[in-house]
Amino acid sequence: MKVGVLGARGKVGAEVCRAVEEAAGTELVARVDAGDDIGVLVESGAEVVVDFTHPDVVMDNLRFCVEHGIHAVVGTTGFDEERLATLRGWLADAPGVGVLVAPNFSIGAILMMRFAAAAASFYESVEIVELHHPDKADAPSGTARRTAELVAAARREAGLGPVPDATSTSLDGARGADVDGIRVHGLRIRGLVAHQEVVLGGVGETLTIRHDSLDRSSFSPGVLAGVRAVAAHPGLTVGLEHYLDLD
Amino acid sequence: MKVGVLGARGKVGAEVCRAVEEAAGTELVARVDAGDDIGVLVESGAEVVVDFTHPDVVMDNLRFCVEHGIHAVVGTTGFDEERLATLRGWLADAPGVGVLVAPNFSIGAILMMRFAAAAASFYESVEIVELHHPDKADAPSGTARRTAELVAAARREAGLGPVPDATSTSLDGARGADVDGIRVHGLRIRGLVAHQEVVLGGVGETLTIRHDSLDRSSFSPGVLAGVRAVAAHPGLTVGLEHYLDLD
Amino acid sequence: MKVGVLGARGKVGAEVCRAVEEAAGTELVARVDAGDDIGVLVESGAEVVVDFTHPDVVMDNLRFCVEHGIHAVVGTTGFDEERLATLRGWLADAPGVGVLVAPNFSIGAILMMRFAAAAASFYESVEIVELHHPDKADAPSGTARRTAELVAAARREAGLGPVPDATSTSLDGARGADVDGIRVHGLRIRGLVAHQEVVLGGVGETLTIRHDSLDRSSFSPGVLAGVRAVAAHPGLTVGLEHYLDLD
Amino acid sequence: MKVGVLGARGKVGAEVCRAVEEAAGTELVARVDAGDDIGVLVESGAEVVVDFTHPDVVMDNLRFCVEHGIHAVVGTTGFDEERLATLRGWLADAPGVGVLVAPNFSIGAILMMRFAAAAASFYESVEIVELHHPDKADAPSGTARRTAELVAAARREAGLGPVPDATSTSLDGARGADVDGIRVHGLRIRGLVAHQEVVLGGVGETLTIRHDSLDRSSFSPGVLAGVRAVAAHPGLTVGLEHYLDLD
Repeated sequence: MKVGVLGARGKVGAEVCRAVEEAAGTELVARVDAGDDIGVLVESGAEVVVDFTHPDVVMDNLRFCVEHGIHAVVGTTGFDEERLATLRGWLADAPGVGVLVAPNFSIGAILMMRFAAAAASFYESVEIVELHHPDKADAPSGTARRTAELVAAARREAGLGPVPDATSTSLDGARGADVDGIRVHGLRIRGLVAHQEVVLGGVGETLTIRHDSLDRSSFSPGVLAGVRAVAAHPGLTVGLEHYLDLD
Repeated sequence: MKVGVLGARGKVGAEVCRAVEEAAGTELVARVDAGDDIGVLVESGAEVVVDFTHPDVVMDNLRFCVEHGIHAVVGTTGFDEERLATLRGWLADAPGVGVLVAPNFSIGAILMMRFAAAAASFYESVEIVELHHPDKADAPSGTARRTAELVAAARREAGLGPVPDATSTSLDGARGADVDGIRVHGLRIRGLVAHQEVVLGGVGETLTIRHDSLDRSSFSPGVLAGVRAVAAHPGLTVGLEHYLDLD
Repeated sequence: MKVGVLGARGKVGAEVCRAVEEAAGTELVARVDAGDDIGVLVESGAEVVVDFTHPDVVMDNLRFCVEHGIHAVVGTTGFDEERLATLRGWLADAPGVGVLVAPNFSIGAILMMRFAAAAASFYESVEIVELHHPDKADAPSGTARRTAELVAAARREAGLGPVPDATSTSLDGARGADVDGIRVHGLRIRGLVAHQEVVLGGVGETLTIRHDSLDRSSFSPGVLAGVRAVAAHPGLTVGLEHYLDLD
Repeated sequence: MKVGVLGARGKVGAEVCRAVEEAAGTELVARVDAGDDIGVLVESGAEVVVDFTHPDVVMDNLRFCVEHGIHAVVGTTGFDEERLATLRGWLADAPGVGVLVAPNFSIGAILMMRFAAAAASFYESVEIVELHHPDKADAPSGTARRTAELVAAARREAGLGPVPDATSTSLDGARGADVDGIRVHGLRIRGLVAHQEVVLGGVGETLTIRHDSLDRSSFSPGVLAGVRAVAAHPGLTVGLEHYLDLD
């Protein structure tokens, strides 16, 4: 499969280029970055494009790809409902072309969220601990919030009430943040990268699901999974989890 | 739901009685043990029976239940293919009666195995660590072996080759036991009960699924789940996992 | 060594009796509880007494022991400076008699605190996570608070500044409670007993010290350690850590 | 403090240069590698040299340093008793000059070993789990072996017998490797770097000490600690742990 990379000289793009070159079954045919002629995608015969560029240019990139029948795997941020609707419009006129827009290419993070939601209805208690390097600006992390929302939804659907908690005396913040009724705790520790643990518990037992991201290259397997599957998923897909066969 | 317990004076049976009495929606109507008249199950109106007795008597117990239209949830061991076939024969003549035979009532252990198998195809590496009290006679544990077999099957189905391992100099046993190509390590530590960790890893990230059984009472939620669901599953079911809606 | 137990019919006292009977080198010679004649301690030849009774009676118990030359290991709560001063006065008149008053008999908790404090000056970051059953009334736990204070003191002594934390947007409570500048997070999970993790981190590495109390009997080894060492430590000692040879 | 680096263009040496430049209180005054004139160390006024070179050249480097009154912090391997004796001889003629030869500059690994040995005498059970990337050639790791030896020595000194283990049926390797009576387990997982866990257990409780090295830069703080302390430790020191004030 011939692959072009948009944003090829960026930190993430360069890593994607390396991964595409090393992986079996994929060939890197075009590296494009700001100032380069996007036409090279067509000339090089790219079948799939990976886009890690910028919200300002990603829509133009995608219009070009869709018009030229090139599938796209997109990690660039900034997609709101309006942009997704525009994309769907373009794709309606290009049957057979697939576009994947994914906020998170970490397969491990996706599996962790999926498993936490699947297990949630079987346990009385559940809390989330996320651990990151101390230069992170927000707490809790987006992944932790999203996990809490998924877990809370699964509990509601199963008819579970609130998690038990007899705390009557407490220091401010000791019991973490409340996200949709689920307690979330954020640690900031030098030396760590990005880590999360979901702890579920019932009478006499606990189940813990932990994801450790030790290197920024951990998005590569997810991008490659997207590259390999996008042609088989025409139209717009939001979220890599829809490509992963988990059942 | 009216519940009778066979083996009610045994350690596990007594705990089941306690759980049935405390749970919402179940009522304990009969406690039966060796020497007691099993007829009390009918007189008390038991709809479901829980059997934690002995391989020598469990088949007689089950024939009685099936003949009297009482569903059964069975934790007694010693079921081979012949016994299961006999059971199926009895149930063929009693449409509507359900029997669950389960080697493991720990919901957490079942979820751990299920999640490990579901994640296996996405990771290059996987190993299993089980930790138990030092009075355990076998290593690795049955659950660890079963997990390794499920993980190995999932890898084969996904076309994955052997896990990477460049070990060329090694002390005997340092790399654990080989179960179907998957490395399994058993720790024996005073103070522990029954614990297992499945570690999966790919470029830059790992996913860890851990189950901790801290108390023998951890089988109760699984038994109750069986009691509640058995009437809706006529015929023979082997393994509690078939009652758990995980998808 | 002949041991008497005061509060022998209480939950903890009964467990202490069992431990004394089973341990090598100790003999249980007297079980005393409310209503019993404390004189039996003398008649039975008890050399050491273990007291898990009540703040209302413990001082009378100890006066009796000190006057009769019996060493005491005390887990009963309620000791303030005034009581300790009274005890010291009695012991001044009974050279050779040792009394240990300990708020915590868990050797693991003591080691965890000691190691966390010893490591603190070598790491830029440190946070504490404590996990307990959901029936606990206070958060964070007393042990977590004490650990934070010890770690904070060690950092101050080493001239370390505040831990790094770039958090600028945060949900209330996401970063835990602040105890003396150290972040402490409390989880409440059904199935757990009493657990704590201290996470220290510097460039490229982390050190984690975790203590798991899986059973209330975990105080027994500490009580036995106290029983064995008290005769060699005449006078008043507050805190089991002073008996543990850690250097 | 003026610092020169020998082996400055190697992977580790380059990282040391970066760390010395960034750290407060140290100044990088010379980078020397194969082919360069070592005399630049004297001309630049280097007070301390860091040597990450090769066993073939390190002795010549050190003779030069000692003769010119420059302290040395050495991470180069290949030091046997003969070499250490030679070094001691040179240092006898150069009072005031300090040389630190350290096989391991990870402060976390040193603390883990120290704490494991300090805790060993208080626990009935102890085992070691080390986890590394799958390209590692030896199992178990040198650090795990060393930890096992230290723990075994501490147990012997405390008069503890063998760890309890009732295993009677076992798959080959399931219980790990035996290092001095201590069980050691090695996992090889893609995505991991270098990690180790020491699990100690007694009745009702466990203590776990875990070290995670997530990045090769984790030796930098240890090298800097050595650079800062070497002048205050004249003569030969083997092992960074002797510079760390742990008591």
